[in-house]
Amino acid sequence: MIFYDYFRSSAGYRVRIALNLKNIVAQRHAVSLINNANHHADYMALNPQGFVPLLIDGDGDDKFQLTQSMAIIEYLEERFPTPALLPRTIRERATARALALMLACDVHPLNNKRILDYLSEPLKLDKEAKAAWTNKWISDGLRAFEVQLSKLSVTAFCMGDAPGIADIFLIPQIASAQRFSVDVSAYPRCMAVYTEAMQHPAFDAAQPAKQTDAS
Amino acid sequence: MIFYDYFRSSAGYRVRIALNLKNIVAQRHAVSLINNANHHADYMALNPQGFVPLLIDGDGDDKFQLTQSMAIIEYLEERFPTPALLPRTIRERATARALALMLACDVHPLNNKRILDYLSEPLKLDKEAKAAWTNKWISDGLRAFEVQLSKLSVTAFCMGDAPGIADIFLIPQIASAQRFSVDVSAYPRCMAVYTEAMQHPAFDAAQPAKQTDAS
Repeated sequence: MIFYDYFRSSAGYRVRIALNLKNIVAQRHAVSLINNANHHADYMALNPQGFVPLLIDGDGDDKFQLTQSMAIIEYLEERFPTPALLPRTIRERATARALALMLACDVHPLNNKRILDYLSEPLKLDKEAKAAWTNKWISDGLRAFEVQLSKLSVTAFCMGDAPGIADIFLIPQIASAQRFSVDVSAYPRCMAVYTEAMQHPAFDAAQPAKQTDAS
Repeated sequence: MIFYDYFRSSAGYRVRIALNLKNIVAQRHAVSLINNANHHADYMALNPQGFVPLLIDGDGDDKFQLTQSMAIIEYLEERFPTPALLPRTIRERATARALALMLACDVHPLNNKRILDYLSEPLKLDKEAKAAWTNKWISDGLRAFEVQLSKLSVTAFCMGDAPGIADIFLIPQIASAQRFSVDVSAYPRCMAVYTEAMQHPAFDAAQPAKQTDAS
């Protein structure tokens, strides 16, 4: 299995955690978003969105290419069911997916590199206006996530004692919030899960700073 | 089953199609986003994101509330497996999810009402700059979607002869593109699927203009 990634990508971070939790050894290829390596023709041929992560499973005639972190994690879950990243009951599975999607759809895509680049050029937003933008969408998302957590029986992780898909999406989003200097003190349930996760080897080893391409 | 929706919501449109395809009769409650009904305290208590769609299944002690269109559709799929909205093989399921997520994550959230409102105020973008914004992200997304479709054996629908989750996400996105006056002629595969889907009663009945709250 081959996995294209960039150390600072939140979406890549999610897949790194999932691979670690399932003890899947994948050959990691770093694609430098800062150097625009993701827009080279050879990479665009693999992923026409020009994004990481990208997973390649099998080779030759059996080669299968897959984009989108949520689709990759659902694929890993179906292909390697144990340990499970989704809960057992239909309702709990739905709740876990909804938590992940709150961040995957309504927070992260608003603050990734292509959007921040567009805010600079052509929109010519200054540093403060860009900070207000990232702060607004991250804070709105984490506030709603915190409310949803308050309705659940969160123990160590979002959905109970074991880490799962909601945690896989939350932890990179908290790391991103901290990088953007968003005040995370208003989200104590989220931060308790973050603190717990950072003690877990699968999350710890997936951290951006611990990747070979980290700078 | 109760379903909170707004006729012009692309995410609501997806769930309407899914409910129709599975012949599930849900009681539809219209929430006017244009009147900010989604930000009233009683609705925010149901969905702290203040978004539609929201699904409520069961009642009393058995009541289950679920947000996020993708999570709702996966829930409907697990709860009412026939007719299936996801393909049978693990790889095809992953491909279908990735197509849906390309639009769910990287196109739609950039162009919904809260973002367009923010572009107006505080960012004070004029009509042309807002049109350039929506055109950019919709075009980038549909271009990549078109490339991915070119790698598949598209017949009537994205993944074959029967409609499924990729079509459920594509059709509302095409409708949104047309509403924003995006030139869709560069995406003939997407448009062929759109034309096919519009002949299908489940998609036809889910159209924004055919909802009771359409104005």
